[in-house]
Amino acid sequence: MKADLITIGDEILIGQIIDTNSAWMARKLNDEGIAVRQITSISDEHDHILETLSDASENVDLVLITGGLGPTKDDRTKDAICQFFGTQLVYDDNVLKHIQALLAPRGVQMNGLNRDQALVPESAVVLHNRMGTAPGLWMEKDGCVFVFMPGVPFEMKTLVSEQILPRVRTRFKTTPIIHRTVLSQGLPESMLAERIADWENSLPSFIKLAYLPNPMHIRLRLSASGEDRDVMNKVLDEKVEELLEIIPEQIFGFEDETLTGNIGKLLKQRNQTVGTAESCTGGNIAHFFTSDAGSSDYFRGSVVAYSNEVKEKVLGVPEKLLIEHGAVSAEVVEAMAVGARKVLGVDYVVATSGVAGPTGGTPEKPVGLVWIAVAGPDGVVSKKYNFGNDRGRNIVRSSQSALNLLRNTLLK
Amino acid sequence: MKADLITIGDEILIGQIIDTNSAWMARKLNDEGIAVRQITSISDEHDHILETLSDASENVDLVLITGGLGPTKDDRTKDAICQFFGTQLVYDDNVLKHIQALLAPRGVQMNGLNRDQALVPESAVVLHNRMGTAPGLWMEKDGCVFVFMPGVPFEMKTLVSEQILPRVRTRFKTTPIIHRTVLSQGLPESMLAERIADWENSLPSFIKLAYLPNPMHIRLRLSASGEDRDVMNKVLDEKVEELLEIIPEQIFGFEDETLTGNIGKLLKQRNQTVGTAESCTGGNIAHFFTSDAGSSDYFRGSVVAYSNEVKEKVLGVPEKLLIEHGAVSAEVVEAMAVGARKVLGVDYVVATSGVAGPTGGTPEKPVGLVWIAVAGPDGVVSKKYNFGNDRGRNIVRSSQSALNLLRNTLLK
Repeated sequence: MKADLITIGDEILIGQIIDTNSAWMARKLNDEGIAVRQITSISDEHDHILETLSDASENVDLVLITGGLGPTKDDRTKDAICQFFGTQLVYDDNVLKHIQALLAPRGVQMNGLNRDQALVPESAVVLHNRMGTAPGLWMEKDGCVFVFMPGVPFEMKTLVSEQILPRVRTRFKTTPIIHRTVLSQGLPESMLAERIADWENSLPSFIKLAYLPNPMHIRLRLSASGEDRDVMNKVLDEKVEELLEIIPEQIFGFEDETLTGNIGKLLKQRNQTVGTAESCTGGNIAHFFTSDAGSSDYFRGSVVAYSNEVKEKVLGVPEKLLIEHGAVSAEVVEAMAVGARKVLGVDYVVATSGVAGPTGGTPEKPVGLVWIAVAGPDGVVSKKYNFGNDRGRNIVRSSQSALNLLRNTLLK
Repeated sequence: MKADLITIGDEILIGQIIDTNSAWMARKLNDEGIAVRQITSISDEHDHILETLSDASENVDLVLITGGLGPTKDDRTKDAICQFFGTQLVYDDNVLKHIQALLAPRGVQMNGLNRDQALVPESAVVLHNRMGTAPGLWMEKDGCVFVFMPGVPFEMKTLVSEQILPRVRTRFKTTPIIHRTVLSQGLPESMLAERIADWENSLPSFIKLAYLPNPMHIRLRLSASGEDRDVMNKVLDEKVEELLEIIPEQIFGFEDETLTGNIGKLLKQRNQTVGTAESCTGGNIAHFFTSDAGSSDYFRGSVVAYSNEVKEKVLGVPEKLLIEHGAVSAEVVEAMAVGARKVLGVDYVVATSGVAGPTGGTPEKPVGLVWIAVAGPDGVVSKKYNFGNDRGRNIVRSSQSALNLLRNTLLK
């Protein structure tokens, strides 16, 4: 089974944004056993839209189209859609109510531009967009399925995951592919590959392994392809169990779990609380914790101590330690963690101090050097890390490593 | 004048890599006054390559093609090129010498795969690739120019900048396009469109306006196209000046600027410092500040006061205020800002307290309600906001709105 991806709008054609949507959709479709034949970006020019839709319908079974559905007047996509499918625009009451419900609490008055987002082609199946105003539109022509979506990434992703893929599975008979994703942190890709080489060689031929690294961690994705779901699930479960025995400290979760979510679960079970004391990570670890809904059950607060004055005055780090060892040292990061435990009144604190870069490095303390400490009821531990030269990546890696150190401390 | 961009290879179609090459080339072409009509990614399948080249030749004057020229054997691009242009492959002596010269110092022996990189279509103008082994190929058919390049980004960029653009300028008479991007924050797209409708209608026909929204802010892009660069620059400057008078509080910068970068510049000019006191944003504003290199010049630290205990004990918010007004109130958020100013020893503090969701809302204080305060040398101000239902977006919007309130306070 084949699919085309089409992006409508000028942003990509003038190079203002990079088309990340298509890569995401291509991955999702590949996971379903659907091959992407072509990815096309065009402007919202009437005839060009018609030609592109027509070309796709002659070559593939499924076409996912993003963009061109915004509320501003440079939007000509819907007219082209109507002509292509031989239908007309009508107001959809459910979409209209949804737009009103979204705008009302923000004190935004419904105007003509908002109202016209509820205009949908009469023959379309309207897919509810709970993340925004423009709905998804599922349409068919000559056996080919077309799905139109807004181009805003989180709206598109929610529509694809929650509404479109389930419908695609029902509508088309695809060969099942079952995935298991194992989340690992703490070993670089080459070392991880070495450590699990024997296990990898033991995988049966119907299971493929992919390393998916990002600045946060490495995801190991097992993909089983075949007709018998029971057999596939059983073997996948066994292989994941084996992997857990080989790298127990590196595996922090599965599928869409996060380190903070995993830590949150542990803390809730024990009725314990956590906070952070951050220098080089600058509030990013607190941001990770508080991005999880319900984190106020265990996360209490943080002190971002970017300057030495804040380290001394708010966290009580002795001036002597700062002078003798410098801010980026085991002594100071441990004092930050212990101090923050008292100040914030929590059971655990994870603390960071490092040279994020691009400037501020010295021969003894180069850019990328980071000290991380965890203080808890049983005392304080600290560990030294060396990351790279890139500021953004250093902040993310330091945050993830700090969370992993906290998790392993909790599990000891 | 119009151009198409074509990418050949599987990596993009399976979602393994994001197509950053096309965005880069699109920007470069736009800067030359060449509009990109279509960006297409296809696999190296013979007939599909032929159809795509043929479609491009009927619609545009210039086609830039990347990928499909690597040394591995799954490369069918050159065969398709020869058929399309009615020519045959011949060895190019200069390319062969260049490959030998590149491989020798690396101790790599020339093999068949390397040698075949010197095979070029007989009718092609060969463009020297000083960064790698595969040359660029400049070919023409029916007045349309096709340039084939390797997909490795730094090889492609060097070829485009040093060899292809200079030839394009000579070969075609291009019309310059000039862009201005205005960054706005604080009004949703529909309200912004209404507010600037008269101004938008006053734009001369050679200037186009585009709305580019994301969760952080809305970018307004003006694109002028014409022969006289001086006239275009003058009118663009005038129109941006007019816009600044219509929405002065919403415009926080231009082109690639960020709100934190803009605030950082203001603070450095005045030799002043800043910190944050965050409840619902959970450290995200501190993270935004500390993501900027050099932010330690003005950013001192933060208190993330997620629990009421931390608000009281660390920031000194009176218990009475928390009981009488609740944490999400003007009184508490102002007390947080004023308290943090003392605790952190900074000139300005921006503070947030709100209901990020998805739970925790009440009829009086629904999910999305956020209070923001800014405390400075001249006192404290606070403002109430209503965002939507999504936790992640509430955190981002609260952070951006807080930074915008801080910026407007600094400018008063």
